[in-house]
Amino acid sequence: MRQFVVVGHEAPTTPDFPLDDLAGGAGRLDLLCRCVGAALFLSHGIREDARVHLVLQDECTVSFDGATLRNARPDERTLAGLVRSALDAAEDAVGHRPVESSPGVTVATRGLDATLADVARRRTVVHLHEDGDPLPATDPPADPVFVLSDHRDFTADEMALLDDAADRRVSLGPRPIHADHATAVAHNYLDTAGYDPDSY
Amino acid sequence: MRQFVVVGHEAPTTPDFPLDDLAGGAGRLDLLCRCVGAALFLSHGIREDARVHLVLQDECTVSFDGATLRNARPDERTLAGLVRSALDAAEDAVGHRPVESSPGVTVATRGLDATLADVARRRTVVHLHEDGDPLPATDPPADPVFVLSDHRDFTADEMALLDDAADRRVSLGPRPIHADHATAVAHNYLDTAGYDPDSY
Repeated sequence: MRQFVVVGHEAPTTPDFPLDDLAGGAGRLDLLCRCVGAALFLSHGIREDARVHLVLQDECTVSFDGATLRNARPDERTLAGLVRSALDAAEDAVGHRPVESSPGVTVATRGLDATLADVARRRTVVHLHEDGDPLPATDPPADPVFVLSDHRDFTADEMALLDDAADRRVSLGPRPIHADHATAVAHNYLDTAGYDPDSY
Repeated sequence: MRQFVVVGHEAPTTPDFPLDDLAGGAGRLDLLCRCVGAALFLSHGIREDARVHLVLQDECTVSFDGATLRNARPDERTLAGLVRSALDAAEDAVGHRPVESSPGVTVATRGLDATLADVARRRTVVHLHEDGDPLPATDPPADPVFVLSDHRDFTADEMALLDDAADRRVSLGPRPIHADHATAVAHNYLDTAGYDPDSY
């Protein structure tokens, strides 16, 4: 199982955001949706062994599970529509239990701390950060949970939380890349790790 | 300079496509726009040494140049709007000369053959294909031109053309990934190639 936790600092927490302005009025939800696509979609297929969690302004978390996801396409608008349905469902939720808003999509009124506590148990938490150890110098982690930020840096509080929760801090390269591209690179690293180059 | 040529088999060639249905009525222009984003955008920056060319139904080619691109954001809708403006400008174009529709965006009534002939001169043409040589087994190419397909396979004619034009056929891994994710992986391979893992 590979999991990705993406922290959205300006992303909407209520369903009244504009689908026509994901990069502006919807707080860079475009980027978060591309992270969902990169985490879950293969060409003509789904990564059934992958999940992605969008932490929205440390208030609630929308999770997508590749094993059970239905009615999804990898375009930003479709995925933003699923986020909107999830935020709709969250308004009716009681307490902190996750609610399934559509097949494979759940929402919970949890911030980063509670989401990490839930998904990280007995798994390898990998903080993706430009100051981390280079990816090629690290062994492929078993059951990894990659934690990434959107267009904003992690806050001081988030960094403190990750210093405590992360097993590794890893850098993907010398150039700062978007979280969706980092997700694609991390998947590719794991897809090819352990493969004899002559064998694929 | 790194260049990417992405072949769109169902993408629009006229500007009357719906911005609200890029993955459906606009022939998977969502995927092509994500390829533009992956080719040109860094986190808070642009890859000024990169260009991407979208070949639309073998009729016309819309090119984006990282060095001169302005007014762009990496979301699908913004980039699709630039494609629409380019196709608008193409209707007024005379002959096969490229027309600049907005800063850094040009359109030419050229298919794959003519586009490759233009961009491939004295460069290394890399055909990204699942049956190619594994990426780690190849030396990083100088001045590469990566050629990718959208959600459809290359046609027999395109394969014949690439058999002739490509210097290498390279596979990025054992799992079939989308063209935008392949673009991100190819960039990362070149970003990290030659770097001492201790140095970034």
